[in-house]
Amino acid sequence: MWIIDETDFNKDNIINNGNKFLIGNGFIGYRGTLEEFGKKELVAVNLPGVYDKYQDKWKESVNAPNPFFTQVIYNDKILNPLINKPVNHYQSLDISCGVFSRITAFKIDDATITLKSERFVSLKNIHLLSMKYEVISDMDITITLETGIDLNIWDINGPHLKEFQIINNKDCITAYTSTLEKQIPIVVSEATVFSEDLPENFIGNIRKINVRLKKDQSFYFYKYAYINHHEEDLINKAEKFLSEIVPLGYDHLFNENKNEWQKRWDISDVIIKGDDYAQLALRYSIYHLLILSQRHTDKVSIPARGISGQTYKGAVFWDTEMFMLPFYLNTDLITAKNLIKYRINTLEGARIKAKEYGYRGAFYAWESQENGMDACTHFNVTDVLTHRPMRTYFRDKQIHISADITYAIYQTYLRTKDISLIINGGAEVILECARFYLSYGYLKLDNNRFVLPDVTGPDEYHERVNNNAFTNRMVKETFKIALLILSLLKDKYPDYYENLLKSLNYAEDYEKIKYAYEHIYLQEPNEDKVIEQFDGYFRLEDVSIDILKKRLLHPNEYWGGENGVASHTQVIKQADVVTMLYLFKDDYNEEIRKANWHYYEQRTEHGSSLSACMYALVACLNNNPDWAYPFFMKSATIDMHGGSKQYAGDIYIGGTHPASSGGAYMTAIYGFAGISIYEDKIIVKPNLPKNWQGMTFKIIHDDHIMQIEINDGNVYMRRCNND
Amino acid sequence: MWIIDETDFNKDNIINNGNKFLIGNGFIGYRGTLEEFGKKELVAVNLPGVYDKYQDKWKESVNAPNPFFTQVIYNDKILNPLINKPVNHYQSLDISCGVFSRITAFKIDDATITLKSERFVSLKNIHLLSMKYEVISDMDITITLETGIDLNIWDINGPHLKEFQIINNKDCITAYTSTLEKQIPIVVSEATVFSEDLPENFIGNIRKINVRLKKDQSFYFYKYAYINHHEEDLINKAEKFLSEIVPLGYDHLFNENKNEWQKRWDISDVIIKGDDYAQLALRYSIYHLLILSQRHTDKVSIPARGISGQTYKGAVFWDTEMFMLPFYLNTDLITAKNLIKYRINTLEGARIKAKEYGYRGAFYAWESQENGMDACTHFNVTDVLTHRPMRTYFRDKQIHISADITYAIYQTYLRTKDISLIINGGAEVILECARFYLSYGYLKLDNNRFVLPDVTGPDEYHERVNNNAFTNRMVKETFKIALLILSLLKDKYPDYYENLLKSLNYAEDYEKIKYAYEHIYLQEPNEDKVIEQFDGYFRLEDVSIDILKKRLLHPNEYWGGENGVASHTQVIKQADVVTMLYLFKDDYNEEIRKANWHYYEQRTEHGSSLSACMYALVACLNNNPDWAYPFFMKSATIDMHGGSKQYAGDIYIGGTHPASSGGAYMTAIYGFAGISIYEDKIIVKPNLPKNWQGMTFKIIHDDHIMQIEINDGNVYMRRCNND
Repeated sequence: MWIIDETDFNKDNIINNGNKFLIGNGFIGYRGTLEEFGKKELVAVNLPGVYDKYQDKWKESVNAPNPFFTQVIYNDKILNPLINKPVNHYQSLDISCGVFSRITAFKIDDATITLKSERFVSLKNIHLLSMKYEVISDMDITITLETGIDLNIWDINGPHLKEFQIINNKDCITAYTSTLEKQIPIVVSEATVFSEDLPENFIGNIRKINVRLKKDQSFYFYKYAYINHHEEDLINKAEKFLSEIVPLGYDHLFNENKNEWQKRWDISDVIIKGDDYAQLALRYSIYHLLILSQRHTDKVSIPARGISGQTYKGAVFWDTEMFMLPFYLNTDLITAKNLIKYRINTLEGARIKAKEYGYRGAFYAWESQENGMDACTHFNVTDVLTHRPMRTYFRDKQIHISADITYAIYQTYLRTKDISLIINGGAEVILECARFYLSYGYLKLDNNRFVLPDVTGPDEYHERVNNNAFTNRMVKETFKIALLILSLLKDKYPDYYENLLKSLNYAEDYEKIKYAYEHIYLQEPNEDKVIEQFDGYFRLEDVSIDILKKRLLHPNEYWGGENGVASHTQVIKQADVVTMLYLFKDDYNEEIRKANWHYYEQRTEHGSSLSACMYALVACLNNNPDWAYPFFMKSATIDMHGGSKQYAGDIYIGGTHPASSGGAYMTAIYGFAGISIYEDKIIVKPNLPKNWQGMTFKIIHDDHIMQIEINDGNVYMRRCNND
Repeated sequence: MWIIDETDFNKDNIINNGNKFLIGNGFIGYRGTLEEFGKKELVAVNLPGVYDKYQDKWKESVNAPNPFFTQVIYNDKILNPLINKPVNHYQSLDISCGVFSRITAFKIDDATITLKSERFVSLKNIHLLSMKYEVISDMDITITLETGIDLNIWDINGPHLKEFQIINNKDCITAYTSTLEKQIPIVVSEATVFSEDLPENFIGNIRKINVRLKKDQSFYFYKYAYINHHEEDLINKAEKFLSEIVPLGYDHLFNENKNEWQKRWDISDVIIKGDDYAQLALRYSIYHLLILSQRHTDKVSIPARGISGQTYKGAVFWDTEMFMLPFYLNTDLITAKNLIKYRINTLEGARIKAKEYGYRGAFYAWESQENGMDACTHFNVTDVLTHRPMRTYFRDKQIHISADITYAIYQTYLRTKDISLIINGGAEVILECARFYLSYGYLKLDNNRFVLPDVTGPDEYHERVNNNAFTNRMVKETFKIALLILSLLKDKYPDYYENLLKSLNYAEDYEKIKYAYEHIYLQEPNEDKVIEQFDGYFRLEDVSIDILKKRLLHPNEYWGGENGVASHTQVIKQADVVTMLYLFKDDYNEEIRKANWHYYEQRTEHGSSLSACMYALVACLNNNPDWAYPFFMKSATIDMHGGSKQYAGDIYIGGTHPASSGGAYMTAIYGFAGISIYEDKIIVKPNLPKNWQGMTFKIIHDDHIMQIEINDGNVYMRRCNND
């Protein structure tokens, strides 16, 4: 239950496999492509947190050159399945330790030549990636082998890097460059150790050697690569690093990585009894969250498409806080806190954005890049019908982002009890987010309601709506958290409290926030117990998704925007009210949850990967685990199958979906296992799908690791020894 | 200076001439087409105030069958310029008395046959229209003449009428029917008196007679028609009417009409010294306002395209109150009051509309039809690129309509001093409009501002904006007027006041309206003295109109809507801030008026016929009459030349532009003559264009008719004897 694989070669799967077989460690993402592939096959060594803007194109994360580029040539024929059809191909990903392998046999003229490789990006040492590469022939032949750093980089909105400085010495090839916009230094260096000592011919960044293969005898080499950025003296650092790493040898490094993975899995694994396919899919989801852990930095968070490339500009969305953070809060508090600190560190960007739109406080970026700059544009989709940029309101109206962050900070504080998160910036973020909503919302003199007109909720097909139920509820929560935090600080840290109020000039707003909190408008369920998604939603055309599909003029047409097929109907992109029902499950009784689930589910296109898990979670709350199951599987397998949308309008949106992975994890733990975590206890109310006999997993709670086992209807909980 | 004419026949002008040579009397509009024309040539006998909706099409005003249809056939050839090219054609409109004439000569085989006609719609008797029709040949021939009621009706969104009941008796042909939706009865009846008694052959609704024409001897007939609707027993009424009218004879009726016109012109005419072309254009504008006077009813108001057809659904817009009413307030108080009473009578519709959108009070229809029903749809433009209906926000966001009506009621009260307008419904409308804004707007807790987010101002290219300067100012005026009226009633009609407050349950809102009035947000001019049209307008792309034109993908493309070429730029459709500067001229100094005029003029596409006059008026306030002049001429000649837009998206929007006519009148009186009217005085500060030596006109003021003469820089004012 640990192996993802593919047993033949199909060129149509190349892009998808790049995501499916992705390896990485949060610092580096290496797509699951073959060594002989290049930019056309979307090879990428993605560097999250390194951003660059080229001319007037979108700013996006940077891809580094590929230090694992390798190709074999025999009789002037390149052993590349796109050029010469292989007789055999197998590739796999061992998610237990993040190792990619491939084995491909080519029949070239009389010889059958087999290529094997194995690679990993070290979870132990974030700068390291390593590969073993092997060639075997069934007859004596001479091949040419080219290996080195491929400087041809796939970019969506590039180029991003200056001309490379190439340093060859006998031990390694180093490619040094910097980004165009901000001159961020980047180094990629590789050392290659061949199984035989052969004369190497360097052509800049590529070694070229001729190898006499003896029948059935393996020729192989190990490659060790170093990648780093943002630091000084990187060329020397690279050479020093490799000079220390290479002597340790591949097997040593491989085992170090494997041990680290074992530790991570020990706390992260969720064992399912009785459903092997779900087991693999859930582990695969957790794998994606593990390769995104951010233990090493609080300056970078997890992009919406992870480290699989530049889709969505490598930017960080609410996905991280609302769909991924729950996993880290249960299994990896260092990452959890770093994700929160990233938001604390980018408060200034949120203040600038609020000011830009005439508001006060902190309006966080919808697509956050470095320093919290918002990468989202006002024209974020291109109309496939007219090829015109289309005005979208993600950036300026999806205001729930600041509430999502507030909610995440508070959850993280509750789970970690780490007051330093609060007094080292968390409180400031929370108060500034509350202040933002105070300045965004209005009081209706008519009825003394505090309301939030002109917003976009999670359902992005309906922009600029009034009083989105989810948003209003989240803003209420933000006010509540702000008031709780203020009260906490006043009690326990009176000096800090006084200084904070003074430095933020918050006294007057404090009173207003109390008032807004008490008067904020929340939609009541209607006579059918359904909560209207926003003012006037029920008056929109009530039409089926199938009929909408027939109205499309172009298959890639964007369903939202002012004139999208869904915009003026009740068809929604993703869970919206249902997301609120999950987050605030204690506020709504089962009757309401069920009514809304049924009403909205049939009107949801699930055009967002954030949607299915929320339907799964609420179905579990409603004691319908078997209705939850298909949504859970959809979330868990999204990157195993690659059936997700590749385009929004004209824009490529492919890549991995870590929020969906996080949603699968959440469904397993909070849905099927039915966990509720309180300060002093964990409550388990299992709701297993009918074919599951049990589940076992661990959760960090109150400084301890708790193992929870559900077995034939019984729940066993035990405290593990802390490591 | 009274004749509009055309000296040859050009089929490309047929549609335009239908508008240009329009005759009518507010009850009936008869397009300026030839007698032999039919629905393809857009012949129409338009009935303002009679509305019908066919299936799911747009509800629109109804066209009646044409009682003047006549064609002459010689040698099987129809004397119709579309079939046989005429050797001569002349048609004219005498705007001194609303008489249409044509004379057309055809050379058919050896004969030259000349058709002459003359027709009018009586201003004296609103049900009457009459025609003289004459045929002369230059040789003895026999022609066939067909004349009667053409039942083939041009409709934009029809059909609207049930099958006709045709009653032929020896004296007249009567076509009786009713509308499809609401069974409104309609009758069209005609009596024809030939110059010789010839055997008539009735084919249903058409007479067919053979006439022996003697060389150079005129054969002619008179036609008398009766049109009515909404009443019972219409067939008998028609027959009775014609039996009484026919004996009076054409000349008598013609002179009656002419005398009535003379009376109207006596008070309405504006004489310009030194500019014959401007004189004709201005008179032509006044002509259009005269044929729209509504002296006979307070159940119907003036549609935006007058009585020229079904464009804009025959509905009433703010055009009437803001651009036409000023003419009637100066010259025809019966019509002025009826226009106001129409709004009072449709208050219930405005209440229903407010409720529909979740507001309180009165939200008047953007496109008002009977009972104040809003004909405007949420998808009021069809995208020419995709042929999809486009969501527009005229109906739900152009909230200034209620303020326009409040302003108009109060202006009418000030001018007429007729308190019955106020206590018979006017006060209720005003209070309900103020209440509507109270419920539409919000208080910002942040800064205690009462604000109006999410509106569309006069500039329709920018929908859903926050704090449109014009709208906010008009809403402030509404609050002010409501408070003034309440204060007036309390002082002078305390019982009525008490009852009104009680019946409207207004006590609490009274206090809130005071608060909102004091706190409503009005934009301050920026450092360049320019007032931002709405929040964020200055941040939009500042691009020239010429560049926008190059961005069009289709010549008829709508510039507004979410993805229109103008929508996210500073290019505006029409005067917006500048309209505010005119209406509230005392609030802004000349420096501000000039800065805004210059800033916005170059960014205005003038895609609305309401735009040019406002630029003309403010240019006059700025003492730049020569800058005003081209805008004035544009307004005054719009229907003389027909250069206005014929399409918005896919929708035909042709027809006359009475608001533009009204704007031309306003520019003459309030701009060039520089009139300011106060309760106790009229102030005249002339600002004549350089080629004008003088102006003379009359104005009703304080129950008297004042004649104002401007001559070589001197102003003479005298009180005329009331008629």
